[in-house]
Amino acid sequence: MEQENLSVVLHSQGDLRLENRPVPEPGPNEVLLKMHSVGICGSDVHYWQHGRIGDFVLTKPMVLGHEAAGQVVKVGSSVKHLKAGDRVAIEPGVPREMDEFFKNGRYNLSPTIFFCATPPDDGNLCRYYKHSANFCYKLPDNVTFEEGALIEPLSVGIHACRRGGVSLGSTVLICGAGPIGLVCLLVAKAMGASKVVITDLSPERLTMAKECGADFQLTVKRGDGPQQLAKSVEDLLGAQPHITIECTGVESSIQTAIYSTCSGGVVVLVGLGSEMATVPLINAAVREVDIRGVFRYCNTWPMAIAMLASGKVNVKPLVTHRFPLEQAIQAFETTRQGLGIKVMLKCDKNDQNP
Amino acid sequence: MEQENLSVVLHSQGDLRLENRPVPEPGPNEVLLKMHSVGICGSDVHYWQHGRIGDFVLTKPMVLGHEAAGQVVKVGSSVKHLKAGDRVAIEPGVPREMDEFFKNGRYNLSPTIFFCATPPDDGNLCRYYKHSANFCYKLPDNVTFEEGALIEPLSVGIHACRRGGVSLGSTVLICGAGPIGLVCLLVAKAMGASKVVITDLSPERLTMAKECGADFQLTVKRGDGPQQLAKSVEDLLGAQPHITIECTGVESSIQTAIYSTCSGGVVVLVGLGSEMATVPLINAAVREVDIRGVFRYCNTWPMAIAMLASGKVNVKPLVTHRFPLEQAIQAFETTRQGLGIKVMLKCDKNDQNP
Amino acid sequence: MEQENLSVVLHSQGDLRLENRPVPEPGPNEVLLKMHSVGICGSDVHYWQHGRIGDFVLTKPMVLGHEAAGQVVKVGSSVKHLKAGDRVAIEPGVPREMDEFFKNGRYNLSPTIFFCATPPDDGNLCRYYKHSANFCYKLPDNVTFEEGALIEPLSVGIHACRRGGVSLGSTVLICGAGPIGLVCLLVAKAMGASKVVITDLSPERLTMAKECGADFQLTVKRGDGPQQLAKSVEDLLGAQPHITIECTGVESSIQTAIYSTCSGGVVVLVGLGSEMATVPLINAAVREVDIRGVFRYCNTWPMAIAMLASGKVNVKPLVTHRFPLEQAIQAFETTRQGLGIKVMLKCDKNDQNP
Amino acid sequence: MEQENLSVVLHSQGDLRLENRPVPEPGPNEVLLKMHSVGICGSDVHYWQHGRIGDFVLTKPMVLGHEAAGQVVKVGSSVKHLKAGDRVAIEPGVPREMDEFFKNGRYNLSPTIFFCATPPDDGNLCRYYKHSANFCYKLPDNVTFEEGALIEPLSVGIHACRRGGVSLGSTVLICGAGPIGLVCLLVAKAMGASKVVITDLSPERLTMAKECGADFQLTVKRGDGPQQLAKSVEDLLGAQPHITIECTGVESSIQTAIYSTCSGGVVVLVGLGSEMATVPLINAAVREVDIRGVFRYCNTWPMAIAMLASGKVNVKPLVTHRFPLEQAIQAFETTRQGLGIKVMLKCDKNDQNP
Ligand SMILES: NC(=O)c1ccc[n+]([C@@H]2O[C@H](COP(=O)([O-])OP(=O)(O)OC[C@H]3O[C@@H](n4cnc5c(N)ncnc54)[C@H](O)[C@@H]3O)[C@@H](O)[C@H]2O)c1
Ligand SMILES: NC(=O)c1ccc[n+]([C@@H]2O[C@H](COP(=O)([O-])OP(=O)(O)OC[C@H]3O[C@@H](n4cnc5c(N)ncnc54)[C@H](O)[C@@H]3O)[C@@H](O)[C@H]2O)c1
Ligand SMILES: NC(=O)c1ccc[n+]([C@@H]2O[C@H](COP(=O)([O-])OP(=O)(O)OC[C@H]3O[C@@H](n4cnc5c(N)ncnc54)[C@H](O)[C@@H]3O)[C@@H](O)[C@H]2O)c1
Ligand SMILES: NC(=O)c1ccc[n+]([C@@H]2O[C@H](COP(=O)([O-])OP(=O)(O)OC[C@H]3O[C@@H](n4cnc5c(N)ncnc54)[C@H](O)[C@@H]3O)[C@@H](O)[C@H]2O)c1
Ligand SMILES: [Zn+2]
Ligand SMILES: [Zn+2]
Ligand SMILES: [Zn+2]
Ligand SMILES: [Zn+2]
Repeated sequence: MEQENLSVVLHSQGDLRLENRPVPEPGPNEVLLKMHSVGICGSDVHYWQHGRIGDFVLTKPMVLGHEAAGQVVKVGSSVKHLKAGDRVAIEPGVPREMDEFFKNGRYNLSPTIFFCATPPDDGNLCRYYKHSANFCYKLPDNVTFEEGALIEPLSVGIHACRRGGVSLGSTVLICGAGPIGLVCLLVAKAMGASKVVITDLSPERLTMAKECGADFQLTVKRGDGPQQLAKSVEDLLGAQPHITIECTGVESSIQTAIYSTCSGGVVVLVGLGSEMATVPLINAAVREVDIRGVFRYCNTWPMAIAMLASGKVNVKPLVTHRFPLEQAIQAFETTRQGLGIKVMLKCDKNDQNP
Repeated sequence: MEQENLSVVLHSQGDLRLENRPVPEPGPNEVLLKMHSVGICGSDVHYWQHGRIGDFVLTKPMVLGHEAAGQVVKVGSSVKHLKAGDRVAIEPGVPREMDEFFKNGRYNLSPTIFFCATPPDDGNLCRYYKHSANFCYKLPDNVTFEEGALIEPLSVGIHACRRGGVSLGSTVLICGAGPIGLVCLLVAKAMGASKVVITDLSPERLTMAKECGADFQLTVKRGDGPQQLAKSVEDLLGAQPHITIECTGVESSIQTAIYSTCSGGVVVLVGLGSEMATVPLINAAVREVDIRGVFRYCNTWPMAIAMLASGKVNVKPLVTHRFPLEQAIQAFETTRQGLGIKVMLKCDKNDQNP
Repeated sequence: MEQENLSVVLHSQGDLRLENRPVPEPGPNEVLLKMHSVGICGSDVHYWQHGRIGDFVLTKPMVLGHEAAGQVVKVGSSVKHLKAGDRVAIEPGVPREMDEFFKNGRYNLSPTIFFCATPPDDGNLCRYYKHSANFCYKLPDNVTFEEGALIEPLSVGIHACRRGGVSLGSTVLICGAGPIGLVCLLVAKAMGASKVVITDLSPERLTMAKECGADFQLTVKRGDGPQQLAKSVEDLLGAQPHITIECTGVESSIQTAIYSTCSGGVVVLVGLGSEMATVPLINAAVREVDIRGVFRYCNTWPMAIAMLASGKVNVKPLVTHRFPLEQAIQAFETTRQGLGIKVMLKCDKNDQNP
Repeated sequence: MEQENLSVVLHSQGDLRLENRPVPEPGPNEVLLKMHSVGICGSDVHYWQHGRIGDFVLTKPMVLGHEAAGQVVKVGSSVKHLKAGDRVAIEPGVPREMDEFFKNGRYNLSPTIFFCATPPDDGNLCRYYKHSANFCYKLPDNVTFEEGALIEPLSVGIHACRRGGVSLGSTVLICGAGPIGLVCLLVAKAMGASKVVITDLSPERLTMAKECGADFQLTVKRGDGPQQLAKSVEDLLGAQPHITIECTGVESSIQTAIYSTCSGGVVVLVGLGSEMATVPLINAAVREVDIRGVFRYCNTWPMAIAMLASGKVNVKPLVTHRFPLEQAIQAFETTRQGLGIKVMLKCDKNDQNP
């Protein structure tokens, strides 16, 4: 095996470098992967620009990237369900302890979980990467590597729609048409939502949302009152939505989410904003509108693969830009500028196909 | 208003007649409807052929029909949400008492419920029919009367899929490709099922199922062993299905349903067979495969209308035959012979469109 | 029947009067009740002092009272399950429309619901009162009228604990030891909570809570930081509580509720405070701590009666004061001053027993 | 450490021996335990008498015992939450693979799980035993070793009551008053069940059930008709029970369970009988009585410890016999004869206290 392992390493706030790192050796329960496609996430850019997200602070160089798919090149001694040559999607969160969260099936809440590209854990934006075999999922032949990489953001959408209880005939409001709002849209429609309204400040993003299947787009202007927006949503749908999925993190949008949702409905908080938020909590409480947060996801990869393989969900249009790994800095700059939706880095020099 | 009210009346086992009945007068909470389209159900034919279903025994003449849609011609004094001219779908079950079942949202289980064409309650296969306004649902312009009438069988599918917990990425086995198996199929796909296998004895019905979106069809031959069939299902899907919806009522098919379903999954019993059944209950118990029955439905009309209006579900292909009300006997004979899927009776002399 | 019907009528803010009203005549689905025991609720006092609660504004004289039990003296023509002489507890909320909320079993959310002593609907603090027979529940011989009246506040506790998912082994934090905090405490213990911590500003109320079964009491001082209080709760329990039931409505206490609750847990909002609240929403979201409001209750009377009859819950110690109906003003003054826990008005001149 | 490790080994059907085995060495994630108290389970006796249970067949000598508590004497290199001297209860099922069942929090369904004293896995009826540290739970000082050992059968009761949805005010029928029926009874009462009826053939067992808190006992005679028994249950409770927990495995008792349960209720199958059972499945289906099996348990130890520590549940009366480990054969004989309820083996020569 070649020894080069070009990696995208964040050294400190603003200091992003392409450098060679040793090819790792997989442990008994791990697999070594030749990386193929890795998407850039808003959080990767945020670490680059700010050196931290909330309490997670970069204190030593860290490889970025966590939306990834690759090919198995070596398996650890105890690994049985994978073999060299298998194409896999990577679930970036791997619980380290068998605590109550893990035993109860909510391992995403385990406080000691390993997570790619969350300090101090290295991500997989590189040529070679090793990962827990139990969190690598074999892709069927009709699912591409890029689709495999997109399972990570898609999983946020699956988890959000599940937590919101989206089902057949649900009406849904999605606040924000960034990558996360769009995956929520795709999943909500696939789960049977009858009508979805989506909001954004940007007409371009709303156009993209329309192409992804949104039934109504609502352009928000800074200064629009939350109650007035809630009224617009109700007018579009003919009734208040059953479920609202908030994907901006902006305070006024959270307010809109609460005012908009019908009594007995659910507001799902996906967007992450400032620590304290001023919201009409009583309005939610006396109408029994539940407020449920989302922290990443759990138990989503197998069903995401089932969906992609069966054609129930089409994530391909989300990829708007591609760069070879060598041009990672340029790729990051593209995401930083908010151009397009999803930027893919192609890590395999010999195969830059989707 | 004209006084003729041609009605399809079952006088006793085998004695089905077309006769005129008085046009009823709606009470304060009722509406009078000019019937438009009414589907024939297996149970209508069963009452005709046998004069009873289980403990429900015909003891006096009864109007048949419960899959129906029509137009409001008169509203009771207390009715606010409907007006003459509104096109509506009819939910045939109307609870008579505000008992614990009703208060808890499971009114289908209320033992004293009124139900069209279940003795002694008259159905709506006639020209004019009055019904509780609260159980008539306005149809949007883009939903036809026939689609409205099909909401009744569709509701069985919705209730079955809900009770089974069908969701995004679910794999589903449906036993039986009669009208009920087919609506379960349509709903399962609309709720995001990734793969559906359907079984039947009849290749014609399986062909219809394929057209309705089934991913795999399995032709059952009398004498096929349930465990062997379960193995075939597993081979088709690559794994045992999460959920099985049994729509035949046949003992060996219930056995197949249990053996087929994956540990922790659900078998939904829709088909109604003989009183006692011999089944591998321990196999289900030690694999925690839940067995859940379905009795009609509750709370399905609004979401069914949302689905039809948004195009999420296409029930139109289910209608294979149409007859004017005057030819009801011929229509019943068609259903009795198992020809096609759904036979529609057209009750409005001036409008025989879908 | 005697014609006197002494009633406690609020004419306008601050203007509470005892006056005679006609004895009402029950409609076909109603029963006429001779009132026996009616508890005074914080909301009764609030209407008296402020003339309004949120959007509910007193615009014409209204009889107060909604925590009540009495005896059937006359039944409407259609009533079957009750007869004169039956002792009943009254559920004060009666849905007026068979809307989607009602059909789905969440009738408390129906926007047009009738509710005793919520403007403009009259309450039952009087000698004779008529009510929907479907919302009167027969009391077994071993349940007193006062216990019957206390089912109303108890129902808030049942609904809160159900919405919070309290179950065997749950650890629970209850913020506020007023009547509502105490009923939540009683119910949480009866549902199997292993440990309950309760907070209040008042040491007297915490002493009462201890008598009602609280495992730990935490005295809050104005100015205590929410995160510091959360730490104290964790220290008392040895871990963060699974469920927090907020019964003060105070902003800082809602903050404490969020910080205190363990990841994956639930905060139930029962207390009603100011319209907007500033809270650490992100903290809740990224730990998937769900926030669920409570609006009154639904489907609680039958199980509350079962609990009281079986001795699972003892509400008797909550009654700290009793006044004959004639002394209603004095009784209201007692509640206004925050003396004791529950003040009972005895409406039957001939039977002032519990 | 002493080298003797007296163990109760089943060599083949009927051939039970006490013999010395080597003291095992704990792996990195394991702990070595000095066993203190181990209960004898019906399944231990069944393997002794029949050499098999269903598909699990004894093919080589196996140590019996899986209801156990002991003291940590050595910890593996990676173990952090336990140290020598800790008193622990042992969860006997330890998943071997991180499959979908495990990730979803239902690890009891994992087909490759390790389980004490299920062939070919050794149990812990011995002096020294090593176990996965993640499945050993520290006992608080106020919980005895015997209570710790009883968490195993208690867990079956917890899992059954959870699966049945027992909650405040539930009415419950329990079929069979053996050790398993009794733990279901204890748990149902602790979860707030208002009334529990329990059945058995044996008056002695029903007397024990009465002492454990059963509200009604129903003596079954061979030949009693299931529908007639269902009627007796309804008469005792005044209504059909919400939930039935079947703990005999006997076909006629399963029939009684179905007929007895109210519409919309749940039958939990705990008892394990013959492969095929003839049952009134249609009766269950059309009344939407769900049938849910129980296979052991998952996620019960922490809450069981919370319950025992808080005194919510008293399992101590279940222990009717105690024998030192050296008299294991005599102890097994006692259980085989159905004397008493739970027989405890005391494995620590120096401490034979509870
Ligand atoms: N909870 C989780 O596990 C999780 C996971 C991934 C991302 N996130 C969060 O989800 C959010 C969305 O992620 P993204 O990658 O799509 O971000 P993004 O910034 O690309 O998209 C956010 C979109 O919201 C729009 N927006 C801003 N203010 C708005 C307003 N008032 N009304 C309507 N739209 C408005 C923006 O124009 C933008 O298109 C971020 O806050 C991110 O931190 C959370
Ligand atoms: N539970 C309810 O509320 C409810 C409501 C409506 C209908 N039903 C029941 O649902 C069932 C289906 O109704 P339908 O109208 O579709 O009936 P149907 O008779 O038209 O269809 C049943 C299908 O099952 C097939 N079948 C028979 N034996 C089979 C086997 N061993 N394996 C596979 N397929 C087999 C038949 O060929 C037929 O196509 C009936 O039993 C009916 O009573 C129940
Ligand atoms: N959601 C509903 O359906 C519903 C129904 C009934 C009552 N409520 C609300 O529940 C709340 C409680 O009702 P109540 O009758 O018990 O009221 P109450 O005023 O008698 O009790 C509130 C208690 O909270 C204590 N408290 C105040 N600030 C505190 C703090 N920072 N920390 C801890 N304790 C604090 C007070 O000392 C008092 O004992 C009220 O807000 C009421 O409006 C809601
Ligand atoms: N599903 C699981 O995970 C699990 C776990 C443990 C035990 N079990 C099963 O639970 C059952 C009970 O276990 P146990 O240890 O209490 O057994 P047990 O044999 O001690 O008790 C069974 C009781 O049922 C009574 N009984 C027999 N026929 C009856 C009838 N027709 N009506 C009423 N009572 C009747 C017997 O008299 C006896 O007291 C067994 O079948 C066992 O295999 C299952
Ligand atoms: Zn990301
Ligand atoms: Zn039908
Ligand atoms: Zn009140
Ligand atoms: Zn056992």
